[in-house]
Amino acid sequence: MVDEAVRMEATSRIGLVMATIRQRIAGRSLVPGSRLPSVRSLAGSLQVSVSTVVEAYSRLAAEGAIVSRPGSGFYVATQVAPMTLAAIGPDLDRAIDPLWISRQSLEADDAIPKPGCGWLPATWLPEQSLRKGLRTLSRAGVEALSNYGSPLGLAPLRRLIGRRLGERGVEASPDQILLTESGTQAIDLLCRFLLEPGDTVVVDDPCYFNFQALLRAHRIRVAGVPYTPNGPDIEAFTTILVERRPRLYITNSAVHNPTGATLSPAVAHRVLKLADQHGLVVIEDDIFADFEHTPAPRLAGFDGLERVIQIGSFSKTLSAAVRCGFIAARQEWIEGLIDLKIATAFGGGRLSEELIHAILADSGFRKHNEALRTRLERARRDVGARLRDLGIVPWTEPRAGMFLWCRLPAGRDSADLARAALAHNLVLAPGNAFSATQAAAGYMRFNVAQMQDERTFEILRSIL
Amino acid sequence: MVDEAVRMEATSRIGLVMATIRQRIAGRSLVPGSRLPSVRSLAGSLQVSVSTVVEAYSRLAAEGAIVSRPGSGFYVATQVAPMTLAAIGPDLDRAIDPLWISRQSLEADDAIPKPGCGWLPATWLPEQSLRKGLRTLSRAGVEALSNYGSPLGLAPLRRLIGRRLGERGVEASPDQILLTESGTQAIDLLCRFLLEPGDTVVVDDPCYFNFQALLRAHRIRVAGVPYTPNGPDIEAFTTILVERRPRLYITNSAVHNPTGATLSPAVAHRVLKLADQHGLVVIEDDIFADFEHTPAPRLAGFDGLERVIQIGSFSKTLSAAVRCGFIAARQEWIEGLIDLKIATAFGGGRLSEELIHAILADSGFRKHNEALRTRLERARRDVGARLRDLGIVPWTEPRAGMFLWCRLPAGRDSADLARAALAHNLVLAPGNAFSATQAAAGYMRFNVAQMQDERTFEILRSIL
Repeated sequence: MVDEAVRMEATSRIGLVMATIRQRIAGRSLVPGSRLPSVRSLAGSLQVSVSTVVEAYSRLAAEGAIVSRPGSGFYVATQVAPMTLAAIGPDLDRAIDPLWISRQSLEADDAIPKPGCGWLPATWLPEQSLRKGLRTLSRAGVEALSNYGSPLGLAPLRRLIGRRLGERGVEASPDQILLTESGTQAIDLLCRFLLEPGDTVVVDDPCYFNFQALLRAHRIRVAGVPYTPNGPDIEAFTTILVERRPRLYITNSAVHNPTGATLSPAVAHRVLKLADQHGLVVIEDDIFADFEHTPAPRLAGFDGLERVIQIGSFSKTLSAAVRCGFIAARQEWIEGLIDLKIATAFGGGRLSEELIHAILADSGFRKHNEALRTRLERARRDVGARLRDLGIVPWTEPRAGMFLWCRLPAGRDSADLARAALAHNLVLAPGNAFSATQAAAGYMRFNVAQMQDERTFEILRSIL
Repeated sequence: MVDEAVRMEATSRIGLVMATIRQRIAGRSLVPGSRLPSVRSLAGSLQVSVSTVVEAYSRLAAEGAIVSRPGSGFYVATQVAPMTLAAIGPDLDRAIDPLWISRQSLEADDAIPKPGCGWLPATWLPEQSLRKGLRTLSRAGVEALSNYGSPLGLAPLRRLIGRRLGERGVEASPDQILLTESGTQAIDLLCRFLLEPGDTVVVDDPCYFNFQALLRAHRIRVAGVPYTPNGPDIEAFTTILVERRPRLYITNSAVHNPTGATLSPAVAHRVLKLADQHGLVVIEDDIFADFEHTPAPRLAGFDGLERVIQIGSFSKTLSAAVRCGFIAARQEWIEGLIDLKIATAFGGGRLSEELIHAILADSGFRKHNEALRTRLERARRDVGARLRDLGIVPWTEPRAGMFLWCRLPAGRDSADLARAALAHNLVLAPGNAFSATQAAAGYMRFNVAQMQDERTFEILRSIL
């Protein structure tokens, strides 16, 4: 027993020396390549024995944190330790971390069914409009094919986006619309514009998983507000505003991801009133807008783009291969956003902008979208019924879109199920990947458009 | 005199109260929308008179920092003050700040001559290859037109880039190559990966101005190392490494922007040796590679992608309208970079990747490039001679590329000249926009491909 105590004591002294050196490296008072204090001088200053320092240095060298140069001493390793998303914030089970579904879905072969992914199969998109658009572009002026886009983005496309926003009750002049490389890049740009590392942002719980990954990359604290079938829970929202003092709320309102729910006018009003009282900015991500038959309330419409910023893209109904998104925001913010856009992405993607403009301006796209809505409606109904047969029950009846957010049979864990499905080459979307508070282990998001293959249900049945 | 002293004393007390409130707002102990302490209580705690606090609050209200709600008190304004690039780092003359040239060039009409911009006129790019590529793409598989790119990016394009890097002495397997939305986005992604706010980065002085804007957006301190016709000044570089402890060095080596200089093998060796000793990572931005007749030494080639990361794009010789860049880096870093790419940009631009692959694989592009090099050589010679006639003297004789970095006639300030030129609708690139230490007021970067219009020389002559 005595020996053990002595050994523990010695261990903790070695640990102390190791921690001291690690801290100096982390705090950059010891930079890569610099020489560590001599064994003797550190032993003196920390009041430990020379052999303790020798042992601590040996262990740090074995870890690769420092290197020994015989005859010269110990040096901080010059290996770089880059910033990984995994290293920021709490450890997460990789199978349900916010990036798992994205990576599985994006890496999977085109032919593999992906009920967990957030996009339509290629064959559901307006293929003929895309081919026609590319042919049109092949005959366009040489500047359209070769020059950078303008800082704001292609003017005719911005005018067209302005008109489309108007149809959903959001008034925005073309000068209030800034084109970006994608919807994700739009939010990324806004995070740079509005946030400082360490700030808090409210997201819905559950919310689109990539919001969490993106905020993590910005070193932002996330507060999850429970989402109800009518929008965020107002009581919880109020508490977060008071206690956590967030700067920003990021949400989808028309078609919520992952739940498919729609914000009610009453909740929209209360969210905006609270935002006003607490100096909160809101980003309304409206990338599913084209799925709606009749527009639901938009926070940006109620607010008149005062403190709400709307973002959108064309990846869900036009093409995910053509990158283009946009920000609609108050006029005074556009200048600063342009500077940031140039600094971090330089010129816009003029070819994508030209192509998207050609397709949006074509009547074929509108007709395709109408047919798509009906097709999705049927798919939600059919897939919903088949899932119910398996004991998987939709949490709400979405008015639009491709998602069904479902409760699994009692006791089933969606992460376990996703792991089992992957062994069958099936990518699922476990609930906790969407939940900042990890409160959705019993839920799963299904993409009805990716479930037209009988095999999907066979696999689900076999692993349930 | 006594009155004056009393007034100054009172003023400084009011200033103290104002500073106290401002500090609490900045430190977020007073958040937007929250109530300020009552006049009486603040007067008590700061030991000033009530009238001092009343005056301080009135002034803060006049500034818009706080608002008065009659009958209720004063509240922190809920107006948001977003982060602008201008607000980070020292104030700069907007006419020569790092974004000025980018914005002027990108905003200018296609038809306006832009000797200050960093790209070729559309008519110098491979128009026929682009048109052919678009026609080919219009007949491609539906997935190529509609699906997200894979996380690493299109495999055949990565293999092709790997072969092209090999021709320049940089060995990289396709798995070490990550496609990005652009060269700028490649560097942006690497900054997120490698840097923390407050870190120091070395750039060449002069360097591509957007490096400075990008680093500013990341809240990075910049150290400028004087650039010689053979590469960075090694003595100054060593001093910076010792005194400023930078984490990263960003440079172009084959064709340096703005000088057109080429790194010598001896300087390359010494840079890498110092990088190794000081744990420095190097980003080698090689977007002008296609301009070279015979490849100059590459840091990434010497180093074997150990601590050098190479980035590139196709915007200079293929098209600036088609956004696509790449990162070639050591294998272990690619995983973390993919996570960051997905979090901040989601899927890749598959259509751009497919189009660029089609064009690179076509023999027409290679032939066009050969002709382009000769055309640029002639333009450098002709424009150089005409500039010399005006007393504007190239600092070095570039082996390749579109830039001439020139010394103006004695006593002329390039920012003044750029302002005068803009009044004639001519976009120039004043030297200090490229200089972290503002040491290049007497220099100007000229793009010879944008100076084929007689009018440019007429304007230059008239404003000199």
